[in-house]
Amino acid sequence: MTRDGLLQQIANEFEFDLTEEIKVGGNYRPVVVDENVAYISGQIPRVGDVVRFAGVVGDDISIEDARRAAAIAALRALALVLKQCGSLELISAVPRITVFVRSSPDFIKQSEVADGASDVLYAVLGDVGVHTRTSVGVAQLPKGASVEIDFIFRLKPS
Amino acid sequence: MTRDGLLQQIANEFEFDLTEEIKVGGNYRPVVVDENVAYISGQIPRVGDVVRFAGVVGDDISIEDARRAAAIAALRALALVLKQCGSLELISAVPRITVFVRSSPDFIKQSEVADGASDVLYAVLGDVGVHTRTSVGVAQLPKGASVEIDFIFRLKPS
Amino acid sequence: MTRDGLLQQIANEFEFDLTEEIKVGGNYRPVVVDENVAYISGQIPRVGDVVRFAGVVGDDISIEDARRAAAIAALRALALVLKQCGSLELISAVPRITVFVRSSPDFIKQSEVADGASDVLYAVLGDVGVHTRTSVGVAQLPKGASVEIDFIFRLKPS
Repeated sequence: MTRDGLLQQIANEFEFDLTEEIKVGGNYRPVVVDENVAYISGQIPRVGDVVRFAGVVGDDISIEDARRAAAIAALRALALVLKQCGSLELISAVPRITVFVRSSPDFIKQSEVADGASDVLYAVLGDVGVHTRTSVGVAQLPKGASVEIDFIFRLKPS
Repeated sequence: MTRDGLLQQIANEFEFDLTEEIKVGGNYRPVVVDENVAYISGQIPRVGDVVRFAGVVGDDISIEDARRAAAIAALRALALVLKQCGSLELISAVPRITVFVRSSPDFIKQSEVADGASDVLYAVLGDVGVHTRTSVGVAQLPKGASVEIDFIFRLKPS
Repeated sequence: MTRDGLLQQIANEFEFDLTEEIKVGGNYRPVVVDENVAYISGQIPRVGDVVRFAGVVGDDISIEDARRAAAIAALRALALVLKQCGSLELISAVPRITVFVRSSPDFIKQSEVADGASDVLYAVLGDVGVHTRTSVGVAQLPKGASVEIDFIFRLKPS
């Protein structure tokens, strides 16, 4: 199956509409492509108008749901590249993702949460999607989200 | 008006001296230019020797003051590029900024705080200044600052 | 002394085995080299199977020990470049490091902690190792580490 098809499968699983416009409310953009590198703004697990799995991981959000939240953030990032480039086939590497997990004071499994995003990148992009990663626990995230992730994708010259 | 003139206007508003030396106290630098990309160290809203609007956003610092803090961080970043390059006209894109907001436990408007920086970049650079952005809430920042922001600028080949 | 020799000296000081395999437990990698830029995943101060100096800085971990933790994270990053490239002589710049310090509510000396990493980079690489830096205080880190740091290295074309 093509990468675009694999993305569609994951989108279906989370009832995420790939044709939905991803808006931002300010003087910034969801994607900037700079010399064949696509920078993606920090993504929270929003599906339509709803932020899924909002809350504090290790407190009101389980690690399983936090992993789902991370998966949705990765899905959104790929959806943004798809919109920007017309196809995910242009991605040739994923140099870095940074995963912020809203954590209870004693929650230390940020890496296990981040796996939710890493697994989506691998499922869709295969070896090309295997990236470097930094996972940290933070006090708060926009809209009370449990997870926020930003991404850097390398694109083939077009 | 030129970009440099627009920056001077914003500097005047915050009583920020653009000729002031921006020192760092360690084995690092405020700016590294790598192959026409200028990386800027995390900036807190320091004006002269004073960190403006220090405190916890949502607690002792209002969202309006936090937005001003973010504006000063952006002003400092542009001042650093101006010093390094001699002119802001060399900036051709702003691929990414990362905005850390020292947040009270229930403060979730990190994006609205980050707008203070995004608006300065847009005011000075226009469409070229429209960037990707990640905004997170953190427990603490150096010197008790309310906001810290790092930046990546793309420069024209010189 | 060569860079590789300087790294070995620091490794000896922390009883860190440079030949040890640095494993990751998921669909990500410790290093991705993208067009002569080496991105390093967030490093915690692990030596063998032990995370050194785990805890909250300003509470159960002193600033001196936190600085040692930051030094070990930098040592690990250089060990990863050495493994990947065969020699540290290929490094031509260090555009950025981001330092996350697990901080007690009133701890504001994140920069002084980060100096532990900056000093290692300078000791091994000299002026080439002088980088931009962002230091923030966070609520939690994976495995309860006191410090986590990610790195971007520029490599000479090989």
